[in-house]
Amino acid sequence: MWHLFQFPLCPFSRKVRLLLGEKGVGYELVRESPWQRRDEFIDMNPTGQTPVMTQADRDLILIDSSAICEYFEETTDKAQLIGGTAANRAEVRRLVSWFDHQFYGDVVAPLMHERMKKRLVDRAAPDARILREAMKNAHSHFDYLDYLLDHRTWLAGATLSLADLAAAAHISVADYLGGIDFKGHELVKRWYAGLKSRPSFRPLLSERMEVIKPPEHYDKVDF
Amino acid sequence: MWHLFQFPLCPFSRKVRLLLGEKGVGYELVRESPWQRRDEFIDMNPTGQTPVMTQADRDLILIDSSAICEYFEETTDKAQLIGGTAANRAEVRRLVSWFDHQFYGDVVAPLMHERMKKRLVDRAAPDARILREAMKNAHSHFDYLDYLLDHRTWLAGATLSLADLAAAAHISVADYLGGIDFKGHELVKRWYAGLKSRPSFRPLLSERMEVIKPPEHYDKVDF
Repeated sequence: MWHLFQFPLCPFSRKVRLLLGEKGVGYELVRESPWQRRDEFIDMNPTGQTPVMTQADRDLILIDSSAICEYFEETTDKAQLIGGTAANRAEVRRLVSWFDHQFYGDVVAPLMHERMKKRLVDRAAPDARILREAMKNAHSHFDYLDYLLDHRTWLAGATLSLADLAAAAHISVADYLGGIDFKGHELVKRWYAGLKSRPSFRPLLSERMEVIKPPEHYDKVDF
Repeated sequence: MWHLFQFPLCPFSRKVRLLLGEKGVGYELVRESPWQRRDEFIDMNPTGQTPVMTQADRDLILIDSSAICEYFEETTDKAQLIGGTAANRAEVRRLVSWFDHQFYGDVVAPLMHERMKKRLVDRAAPDARILREAMKNAHSHFDYLDYLLDHRTWLAGATLSLADLAAAAHISVADYLGGIDFKGHELVKRWYAGLKSRPSFRPLLSERMEVIKPPEHYDKVDF
């Protein structure tokens, strides 16, 4: 049995969970709050970041969400998520990287800092200017997604891929933290509604992070 | 023929160049300064970041250094650089990600900002405090590399892998910018000297970035 070290609002762990869900790989969740820098966790992963996956006997420790996703893509047959030609796979990886770096840095990280870390750790109020900037950035990113979805059924092409899961993972965290407004982005909204209704996504949407409440529409497929 | 859009001190482009060199893939360099945000480049890659690779007819555009490396790993037979079992490959990818994110963020990015961007774009003096912090961070990272190299011939195991190339790419940029002191890190020094003497590395070491001079020892295999 696999163990996945994560916390409910970690977008990188959500990406891994969506992939494992699509592939039907079983795992147990282990709650890890990276900001506590627990010694035993740092010993496993010197970066101190989630997600980390281990086998129950700790014979194999997988670190880094990209390495974990590639590992399960290579070792499972069900639901190819980095598939197609080499050029298709490059497009999937480009978009995963886009969400893991650009969207995360522009939108998710500032929201997590202002609305989660400040609340849980620093006991400080969020900075309204930074929140506004993050929400503005989300709109620019959604313009690009609208453009992609105007040409394609899924973000990277004709089939569901890790790009969609990475995008949904990051968007869901930003949405939980009140940073997403779908107005004016009908294509994104329709695509995201489709993802939300997948069995791989349902368990994530029902989880809550202590003291932080998501907006009313957060877990609704029809929003 | 492939074109590689890059600038001499881009660590992510250096990683790709080392991989292409090891694999014997031919390409032409195209100089791109991302901070100029050239329209034609942004049209190709909306993130505006190097490296980007294109075929001469622009039929295929590869974006993001990880996607590019995986592409050539999948489409060439020579010099496997993400090889071995699925667990070995996960270890290679973990370490590549370590250098592309942790080492880059802690060491390379601050050095590039203080010693390159401020010089070329902002015409401002570097902040000595930030430079000292980056150099201190490099020492902590080298402690971890010493630990790995005490157990392994190469960073990810018994054979040269993309992890070594990613590490060398980032270290070489930090070294060019005067941020690396190998004292007390004999294992790292010996390993890096071995990489510097490889034919894939020599062309990079002879290049210069306008107005910014590297330290005396920078391109010497015996340093």
